[in-house]
Amino acid sequence: MKQIRIGIFGFGKTGKVVAHEFLNESLFTLAWVVRKSNQDHHKYASRLLGHEFDAGEIFSIEDIHNGFFLERPVDALVDFSGSTGIYLYKKAAEAGIPIVAAISKYEQEEINLIKTFSKYTAVLHSPNITLGINVLMVAAQILQKIAPHADIEIVEEHFKGKKETSGTAVRIANVLGLNVEQHLNSIRVGGIVGRHEIIFGMPNQTIRLLHESISRAAFGQGAIFAVKYLLGQPPGLYTMETIIAEMFRENIPVY
Amino acid sequence: MKQIRIGIFGFGKTGKVVAHEFLNESLFTLAWVVRKSNQDHHKYASRLLGHEFDAGEIFSIEDIHNGFFLERPVDALVDFSGSTGIYLYKKAAEAGIPIVAAISKYEQEEINLIKTFSKYTAVLHSPNITLGINVLMVAAQILQKIAPHADIEIVEEHFKGKKETSGTAVRIANVLGLNVEQHLNSIRVGGIVGRHEIIFGMPNQTIRLLHESISRAAFGQGAIFAVKYLLGQPPGLYTMETIIAEMFRENIPVY
Amino acid sequence: MKQIRIGIFGFGKTGKVVAHEFLNESLFTLAWVVRKSNQDHHKYASRLLGHEFDAGEIFSIEDIHNGFFLERPVDALVDFSGSTGIYLYKKAAEAGIPIVAAISKYEQEEINLIKTFSKYTAVLHSPNITLGINVLMVAAQILQKIAPHADIEIVEEHFKGKKETSGTAVRIANVLGLNVEQHLNSIRVGGIVGRHEIIFGMPNQTIRLLHESISRAAFGQGAIFAVKYLLGQPPGLYTMETIIAEMFRENIPVY
Amino acid sequence: MKQIRIGIFGFGKTGKVVAHEFLNESLFTLAWVVRKSNQDHHKYASRLLGHEFDAGEIFSIEDIHNGFFLERPVDALVDFSGSTGIYLYKKAAEAGIPIVAAISKYEQEEINLIKTFSKYTAVLHSPNITLGINVLMVAAQILQKIAPHADIEIVEEHFKGKKETSGTAVRIANVLGLNVEQHLNSIRVGGIVGRHEIIFGMPNQTIRLLHESISRAAFGQGAIFAVKYLLGQPPGLYTMETIIAEMFRENIPVY
Repeated sequence: MKQIRIGIFGFGKTGKVVAHEFLNESLFTLAWVVRKSNQDHHKYASRLLGHEFDAGEIFSIEDIHNGFFLERPVDALVDFSGSTGIYLYKKAAEAGIPIVAAISKYEQEEINLIKTFSKYTAVLHSPNITLGINVLMVAAQILQKIAPHADIEIVEEHFKGKKETSGTAVRIANVLGLNVEQHLNSIRVGGIVGRHEIIFGMPNQTIRLLHESISRAAFGQGAIFAVKYLLGQPPGLYTMETIIAEMFRENIPVY
Repeated sequence: MKQIRIGIFGFGKTGKVVAHEFLNESLFTLAWVVRKSNQDHHKYASRLLGHEFDAGEIFSIEDIHNGFFLERPVDALVDFSGSTGIYLYKKAAEAGIPIVAAISKYEQEEINLIKTFSKYTAVLHSPNITLGINVLMVAAQILQKIAPHADIEIVEEHFKGKKETSGTAVRIANVLGLNVEQHLNSIRVGGIVGRHEIIFGMPNQTIRLLHESISRAAFGQGAIFAVKYLLGQPPGLYTMETIIAEMFRENIPVY
Repeated sequence: MKQIRIGIFGFGKTGKVVAHEFLNESLFTLAWVVRKSNQDHHKYASRLLGHEFDAGEIFSIEDIHNGFFLERPVDALVDFSGSTGIYLYKKAAEAGIPIVAAISKYEQEEINLIKTFSKYTAVLHSPNITLGINVLMVAAQILQKIAPHADIEIVEEHFKGKKETSGTAVRIANVLGLNVEQHLNSIRVGGIVGRHEIIFGMPNQTIRLLHESISRAAFGQGAIFAVKYLLGQPPGLYTMETIIAEMFRENIPVY
Repeated sequence: MKQIRIGIFGFGKTGKVVAHEFLNESLFTLAWVVRKSNQDHHKYASRLLGHEFDAGEIFSIEDIHNGFFLERPVDALVDFSGSTGIYLYKKAAEAGIPIVAAISKYEQEEINLIKTFSKYTAVLHSPNITLGINVLMVAAQILQKIAPHADIEIVEEHFKGKKETSGTAVRIANVLGLNVEQHLNSIRVGGIVGRHEIIFGMPNQTIRLLHESISRAAFGQGAIFAVKYLLGQPPGLYTMETIIAEMFRENIPVY
């Protein structure tokens, strides 16, 4: 079977773990990685991550010129860099290469750009690309409709060093129409990787939807899931949330 | 607005709480209650439950004769008695009165009978009629399809005195195709009203769906929900689970 | 065996449950109950709470005169009324009757009064008299000393209608030296009876101490525990917390 | 300040993490590591673990001869190897070097040997050396004494691949006198690092003591804690549990 060739933007803490996950799946071959700095220039991501083979040659953003994507063709692009990474792969988008943009926060200008891209190719943008968080997000919206009188609160727990409120939790609050100041509770202690809880309180019963992150590899698995989904999809703008919502629809139990 | 007239079978611990919930909702009027024994014969359930008005005259099962349902017409029947209660309201079913049968366990004979009833009227049978448990049940089945590689375990916690495994937990295991011996864990301590947890373990993340019962009134609220739903439905066999599954389908978020 | 005679101040929601618990324990006899209003004057608390015997004659606060405690002697006083209840039983305190004051919040004046009482008799004052909460409070203080670098957060969950922050949670924050604004998180949803969680986050592990209330009867059990303890103790000021701390000391495992 | 010289036995998954933790603490210098095989012979553990300096030269067990501990003196020994590692450092023990043996399970013969060692030096043996688990263990024993009527259940959750019951959970059951078959519940799903919960159920309240492992580094931190404690202690047999119990005693809150 022909392997799916992947190019990754971003080689920070999460980017490395994501590269690692793609390297471990035989379905994929990691073609290259683009990082901001010149560090480890032309080395192989595979070697840096402890593998005994060459894969994922490392380029700097200065290496990206008009011919880059022609000379080093990939079947899908995965972006874990930052909000400005998107400006680098306009050519790839126009050439119809599917894109997974796992970027926490875009400004309006980049959102416009991604919409332009989506005319040429399948583009998926999600601030949190893990399966579990998106399952929670969809289930919570349904539950809110089924039990409209339930009181809802969100609790998110992360390691002490995480300064800002969880963007994922803010997103959950937004889709549920909850005021962040009032209904989002942030706990910062020790080394908790990530824990999101949505509490539905009714007079005689409580429902809790709970997601616990064990490792950042969940982001890599989410990206793998997203790439597999995008291949074969028509051009358009996708999110993990819409994919999961669609999967909910297709998997409603039949009696 | 015309009130919905309710007749209740069963006046045990749960039956009383259910009667109480119907008495508290102005949409309903409690016409009568049928209990097994002659205790409190012809008294009013409302008075016994601390209300200052007359409602829910108490009858014994010996009072049920062919004309009972004609003389004391109701708009819906709610059965929290036991597996044999069903034999008492054949006439009512044939007359097209909607029935909510919240019975933990029927033998084949009673299942056949309920199917017969369902030709004449809308019959809902659910071993656990609470909203929350059925939401958990439907969400778990969908999640199992979305994340087929997740390991699933069920933990149910109840008060020390509850001898048998939670029928609800067994039902959850069954719909998920899980071996009860291997994947259902029962905790019996102190006075826990009821807690059901479904754990989905993936390599890098864990999802937990959790339902905590606060009081038996949740059964009354479930019965109210079921009665409202059944009124206006065509004859047929319904379950809370199918209703909730349908509500999932209708409330998938649209983007 | 001679029964312990109890007098209760307060017959509100909690007071009733407490009376109920004392009525259910054969070690005790409920001599009387004093309530603010004239409601149910001279009726028996036992009858109002569904028992078939006479116990706990109900008096109004206007009935309390100098001779009251001589005419209706008790072995211990239990106060679940309010911060001003204390002014009623000065005579009883001076006569050496042990007092359990389960009052959420006293002003300085009442604190002074209780100190005066403690010269004559054993007085226990605790805003939360449940065993579990006091166990949590003591264990948390020890744990904070053992793991001084752990980050600590408190989460308290209660029913939607509870307007104010849990006094118990504030007390926990205070004994741990935590800023209430920063480290105390309040969740208000549905019908949750009461849930207090203390989270100790360390870089590689998390410890959670969790207390869940099932019913207000826990206050009655706490009062029973307190009365049993106070009988036989010398005059002085006690709290549930100091008693539990003492029990911790006596029960450190020996190897 | 003079650094504390450490020798480590064992360089498997946990041994590596433990070495890593010692390398990160400036109070310590890692003198050497002994592993079973000849792999990475005479390389530096520090280099293998990504550090840019030389520390922790790697020896095989075949390198251990009578003069080993004289030629390469350390201030404390830490053993994360296996039950037979103990036979290698008899000479070190006789020379009075403190020993931390974090071995899950010893047979009687090794228990006897460790007792012999404890005549010459301070020896600490604990199957689980994390602070949190030992805090749970001590707190649970105290709580059982304070609330003797509480029902107790243990739930332990670990990754799917863990075949056997958690030795730590078995140990908790044993100190609480609980039948493992009846009161210990094991959940095996996905990638859960480790979670131990002790549930105390009372009629009106539930207390839960919960420990969640985030990473194996907790074992390294536990070893560091143990070494610091042992230095300066007289010869004898210690356990983390006894040390934590002693810390409980010293930190009972005073009012």
